[in-house]
Parts: sequence; C-alpha cells; structure tokens
Amino acid sequence: MVEEQRTQTPAPGASPGSSGSSRRRFLVAGAAAGLGVAAGARAEELPVPASSLKMGAPIPPESYGMPIEFEAHVKRRRSDVFKNKQNYSDWSMTPLHQQVGIVTPNGLFFERHHNGVAKIDPEQHRLVIHGLVEKPLAFSMSDLMRYPSVSRFHFMECSGNTLTDWREPKAVTVQQSHGLLSCAQWTGVPLSWLLDEAGVKPEGKWVMFEGGDGSGHLRSIPIEKVMDDALLVYGQNGEMLRAEQGYPLRAFFPGWEGNTCVKWLRRIKVVTEPDQIRGETARYTDPMPNGKWRQYSMEMECKSVITNPSGGMSLKGPGLYEVQGFAWSGRGKVTNVDLTFDGGRTWREAALEEPVLDKCLTRFRYRWNWDGSPAKIASRAKDTTGYVQPTVEEIARVREIVGFVQHHNGIFPWSVAQSGEVANAIA
Amino acid sequence: MVEEQRTQTPAPGASPGSSGSSRRRFLVAGAAAGLGVAAGARAEELPVPASSLKMGAPIPPESYGMPIEFEAHVKRRRSDVFKNKQNYSDWSMTPLHQQVGIVTPNGLFFERHHNGVAKIDPEQHRLVIHGLVEKPLAFSMSDLMRYPSVSRFHFMECSGNTLTDWREPKAVTVQQSHGLLSCAQWTGVPLSWLLDEAGVKPEGKWVMFEGGDGSGHLRSIPIEKVMDDALLVYGQNGEMLRAEQGYPLRAFFPGWEGNTCVKWLRRIKVVTEPDQIRGETARYTDPMPNGKWRQYSMEMECKSVITNPSGGMSLKGPGLYEVQGFAWSGRGKVTNVDLTFDGGRTWREAALEEPVLDKCLTRFRYRWNWDGSPAKIASRAKDTTGYVQPTVEEIARVREIVGFVQHHNGIFPWSVAQSGEVANAIA
Repeated sequence: MVEEQRTQTPAPGASPGSSGSSRRRFLVAGAAAGLGVAAGARAEELPVPASSLKMGAPIPPESYGMPIEFEAHVKRRRSDVFKNKQNYSDWSMTPLHQQVGIVTPNGLFFERHHNGVAKIDPEQHRLVIHGLVEKPLAFSMSDLMRYPSVSRFHFMECSGNTLTDWREPKAVTVQQSHGLLSCAQWTGVPLSWLLDEAGVKPEGKWVMFEGGDGSGHLRSIPIEKVMDDALLVYGQNGEMLRAEQGYPLRAFFPGWEGNTCVKWLRRIKVVTEPDQIRGETARYTDPMPNGKWRQYSMEMECKSVITNPSGGMSLKGPGLYEVQGFAWSGRGKVTNVDLTFDGGRTWREAALEEPVLDKCLTRFRYRWNWDGSPAKIASRAKDTTGYVQPTVEEIARVREIVGFVQHHNGIFPWSVAQSGEVANAIA
Repeated sequence: MVEEQRTQTPAPGASPGSSGSSRRRFLVAGAAAGLGVAAGARAEELPVPASSLKMGAPIPPESYGMPIEFEAHVKRRRSDVFKNKQNYSDWSMTPLHQQVGIVTPNGLFFERHHNGVAKIDPEQHRLVIHGLVEKPLAFSMSDLMRYPSVSRFHFMECSGNTLTDWREPKAVTVQQSHGLLSCAQWTGVPLSWLLDEAGVKPEGKWVMFEGGDGSGHLRSIPIEKVMDDALLVYGQNGEMLRAEQGYPLRAFFPGWEGNTCVKWLRRIKVVTEPDQIRGETARYTDPMPNGKWRQYSMEMECKSVITNPSGGMSLKGPGLYEVQGFAWSGRGKVTNVDLTFDGGRTWREAALEEPVLDKCLTRFRYRWNWDGSPAKIASRAKDTTGYVQPTVEEIARVREIVGFVQHHNGIFPWSVAQSGEVANAIA
C-alpha cells in the first residue's frame, strides 16, 4: 500500500534551517541513492490528470468531514502484545509514526477505559464538589460552561505506556510500544476557581475524583497539584471532548499520568488523605527493590522516542535520512534531545521544532548519514529541571523491574540492519 | 437543544488570572443573576447516574473516532446569505462560535472549491516544477515526503470572508459572517528548497501554481513570497490533508488569502510576470474609487471578531459576561485587541491567550459587566507592524465598496438588545 510506504520511509536530506550547501549535498546524496528527485525533461508534456477533466464532489449543505479513503489505514489500534480477550478494560494506541506536527487528531487520540466508553447526555450530567468544603456545590454542564475558560497544549501519556518492552523486544511498531501517548489543546476551567468558591477547609489535603462510567474510576490527587494547574476540561482540539475522552467533562492534570485525568467526571471530594482505592494500590504503583511498592508517583518523567525510522520500517540503502521523533516531560519543557547511532557510545544533538511548550510534545529532527552498516539508534531527552532521560539499567538500579511495571521512561533503541530493516532493540 | 444553549451562552465572571476578589465578585454576581452555581446541600445523596450502573461501549480493534451524537449540530455549513443553486463553485463555513482554543478540527475546517472536491490517488499524483528553471523537476508524493518537513500553526482566511456584510446586516451568525476562517498546524516542505534545486533563472520573478481539480484553479505569486515562507503542505493537524483541503498536496502561503493556497497542486511554473488569469482579473481584485481595480492584494490584513456573544445568541439578564473572540493578521502577530461596548466611543483592552503565534488565530477575552441596557459591541485588533484594524468607513475612504467586494477586514459590531438578544449591527 503506497501510504504505508510513504509513512514508513523516513526523509533523507538537510534539516530545516540548514545551509544551501547542505541542501545541495542532499540533492547529490539523494540522486546517488536513487531517491527523491526525478528530472522531468519535458514537464509540460506530462498528461493532464483525470481529476482535472471532471467535476469534483459537491459540497453538502452541512458536514463534519472525514479522512479520504487512501488514508484509511491510519487508525488507532488495540495492543498486539497484550491480547486481551475482553475490550472493556483495555486500550487503543495512537499511530505516532504516522503523526505529523504535535497535535494528535481527536479521531486518533489514544484510549484507555476501565469499563468501556460511557455515553452521557450533557443535559443530564451533574458535577458535585463536596467533602471538606465550606459549601458543597453542584454544577450542570451549562453552569460550568458559563465560566471563563483557558486553552492549553499538553501531552497525555498512560502510566503503562511502553510497559510491554522493559527487557525484551515485544512491540513491533512505535504505535505498539509508545502509542499510549497523544497531545492536544485542552479547553476548560481551572479547578482552583471552583474550589475557591466552595471554600476548602484547612484539613482538606487531598482531592478525590470519580468518573460516571461503569468502573466508577477513582483517583486521589494532592491539593497542591489541584490548586496549581488542574483543569476541568470539556474541549479538545477546538471541539467538545469525544466520548472516548470522557464527554462531557474530565479532570486534567498537566504532565501527570493519564489515569489521574478522570473521565466522565461526576464527583470531586476534598479529603484528608488519599483514598487508597484499587487504582492506587493494586494498580499504578511501582515495585521497589526492597519488596515495597511506591504509590502516587503520578508525574510523568522526561522521555523521548524516535518515530522515524522505527520498528517495521525499512531504509532504502545508505544515504542521508531525516531522523524524527517526540520528546516530552511532565515537569516542564524539553531543553535538549541527543541521539545515538552507535548504541549509546556517542551522542549528537538534535534540532527541536518550535513551538516548544510546557508539558507538551516536542518534535526533534536530525540529518543522519547512514553508511549502510548495522546501527543501533536511540534518543535521550533532557528537561528544564535538568533531569536526563535514563537507561532501563539506570531505572533498574532504583526500582524493581518485575511484572506489570508502570512508568517506563527509559531510553528506547531501534536497530537498523544492513538490509535497512528497523526493529525494536530493547534488551 | 441543550448544546445550542451552551454554546450560545457566553460565560460570566472573572477573566483567567484575575484576583481572588474578582472571583468572589463573580460568585456574588452570578448568584444575583440566578446563574451558575447551585448549592448541593447533600451532595452525597445525588443519585448515581445510569452510566455508572452499566458497561460502556467496547473498544474496537481499530478505529478513527467521531464526535458523540450530542454534538451532531456542530457542523460546517454552506452560506445562508448567498443561496447558490450549484454547490461546486461554492463554500462551507466554520462554526467559529462553537470553536474552543485556536485549532480548527479538520472536520470543521472551512471549504472553498471552484469545481467541487477532487479525489486523487497519491500513488498516481505528480508535481512538476518547470518554466524559468535550470532543471525542470517532477516529484511523486513518495519523493516529496522523503524531504525534511516543518510544522507551523497558521490561520487560513478566504479573501471573500465577511463580503456579505459591508453595509447591511445580512449574516445572522458569526459562522455565516466570518466562517471562511480556520486555523491549523500545517506540515510540509519549504518550497524554496525545491526551487533551489531546480535553479531559478534570474528572469524568473513570479511563480504560477495550478491545481489538479476540474477548475484548473491557478494563481501567480511573487518569487519573494515563494522563497520567503511558502510551503508545500501534505499534513494538517497531525494527519494527512483532507480531500477538501487539497489531498495529497497544496501550496500554503502564510497570511495570504486562501485562494492562493492552490489545492490538489500539480504544477509550479516560474515565469517573468503574473499570468493575469481569471482568478486575478475577474475575481480576487479590489475596486478603487477612480474606477480602476487593484490586483494581487493577497496579504490578509489584521482583523478580529467577537464570537461570544455573537449573532443569534441571547444574554440571560444583566451581569458579568466573558466576552471572547479571535484576532489575526497576515503580517505578523497580534499585539493588542481593544473592545468597545458603546459603539466605538470608548475602548478597553482585552487579554490575549497564549500562545500568541505569527500569522495565527489568537483568542482574546474580557470580563464585561452588562447593565442590561442596549449595547453595541465590537473588537479592534492591532498587529506587530503597528497596523490597526479599520472601520468600514475608513476602508471606504480608500477603496470603492460596491458589488462582490473582497478583503473586508473592517471592525464588526454586534448589538445587544435590552432583551439580551444579540444581532449583526453592521451599517
């Protein structure tokens, strides 16, 4: 299929902003590798395409458009590695290798549900704020949407992203290894405004969020995060939330693991301490070397991955390739991304694409001259706190990597074989 | 319908970042006006919703998601004012009053076609660069997508946006008056890189772009703009272009009128002077007071409009309202937006929402205390060149406003009646 070919073939050539001489070098190298530019000696004589010789499709009186049939292969997909028999407490993953820019289309935004997708009539929906507050409050969606709103670009990542690939290469593609990651512009109301109105009592130190879905998904969040930058969001990428993202209302904690951002949000209760519910004890915790488990590690650490080339793609011979990928941090902005092509022995700095935003996906790129010999490539990101994305070995020194382990932000390598085939090289 | 109610009711209350005292003032004012917050004295006793008592919809193996049925009224729509009998050389308009944030979803991005929507198989598509170049070039989509790419947020506006409403109020809603305006993150290849490769001859001063649709839409662009920031785009908001936006390839000239951004792009010819084709003589020109017509006025001047409240909405009595809207400029960034509530006698500065990007939609907001008497509201934007959005009267002093006139960037007023009804107040 031609689109698979296109999206699986990384671009050779100069990085943006490179000099004229490097662009000329691209041309030469591209020609040398048999790639890219074909001379059209008598360009005027190319046949007029069929599309120019007939009328196109009419414009309907009203519409909500969809992708063209030639892009039908670009889909979010359930896991190939975890073959869940049920598809209610399950997930679907974003095709990161087919994403351009930093905005994930809503139709391709990853999903994670604990009991399927709830359908809620916004006219019937109510949000309650209660517990340790001076004045319990209830809101209809109409009430909430009369408040001033803010819109902010932020990534969202599931705490379980990449958990199939700690020690052994199981995921074939980056969609399967890293596709529990997406990015959007979120619109909603800062929750601190509503809690100020309710009046949090001095003993209120944690806040519990409950969803109106069949799982009654719950999380407890420290009051500091809630008052700092938590949002009640109803909008995503210019329109109302999709059902899969919690329509009509979800919590959003910038930079924190996706499961804290409770969907179909119906209840906010201010409490003295975390609720220790199932999602905070049996799940979303980190085993430690001493046999204990770390709880409430909800901030997503700095991470990155190369999306082009990535697993399942194939390079068409030696030459210049534009390596691309995403970097992100739950603690701030990405400041640097370094790339290795020799399995971590040496590192070179990639270019970051503007705008570089706080707690947001950032694209990086680098012009790589592949000499045709086997290579092991990976990216390593650094954020504004100075934190550097660790190797799995470094993570394993402070945590226990056993079982169904969350929070894998380790450096993730791909191998490039002499044949050009790219594969998951985690080990 | 509840969603219409929600989107048509502007938010009262404090602006983002306002002080605690103004938030408290919102609460009091909201309560006084009977809006917003309802006390839930026994919040715990609110009934558990039906959605919590059953399983949700399962996750399909693969999917491209769509909006929930409750948002089915959010659509792009053909003009209510120009009742075109045909729908091939026609347009559909973005529901700006229902947009949150700055990203227009691809399904709601406005359309303007000269002969319907072409359907082009990307495997068959070719782009030719010829004319006054050293070496004519032909590209397949696969060739083009191997080049390095850039991704940039920019608005796109049709030169005919707002042309129904120069002197008389014809459009009822802002979708109908200003909906030939949208914004996206665009991904593609800087055209200067390809022209450098082709080698533009010294006598090449203009560049002609031709689409592969049934209209053979053509435009001529000065070489300076082409070499400055023109893009060949294949991606929009994270995915490949939609058919309606020129799949698989369109030209993009940041800040310039939409019709220059030729869709289904198949031919680029370097020439000595503009081609004077139909779209540059009979259309897309500006009548002047001396009886002559101005051509090639392709840069979209600074403009703004209030989207909340806007035509067709209704305010629910005196009180605090958050006024919101969009500002943009084809020449740079928006630096200021001023609002009037008394028909232009006095002006107050609105807040701009970050990120404020070059040639991109910028959201503004202002907390307005409506006293319940008739009001005439409007916005006035200023850009980094110092240019201030003019009134229609000011435009009429230098141009002739007669017939099917393009490039209406005048200040656009809405009236608010004592009943709260909001209407088009252009005069």
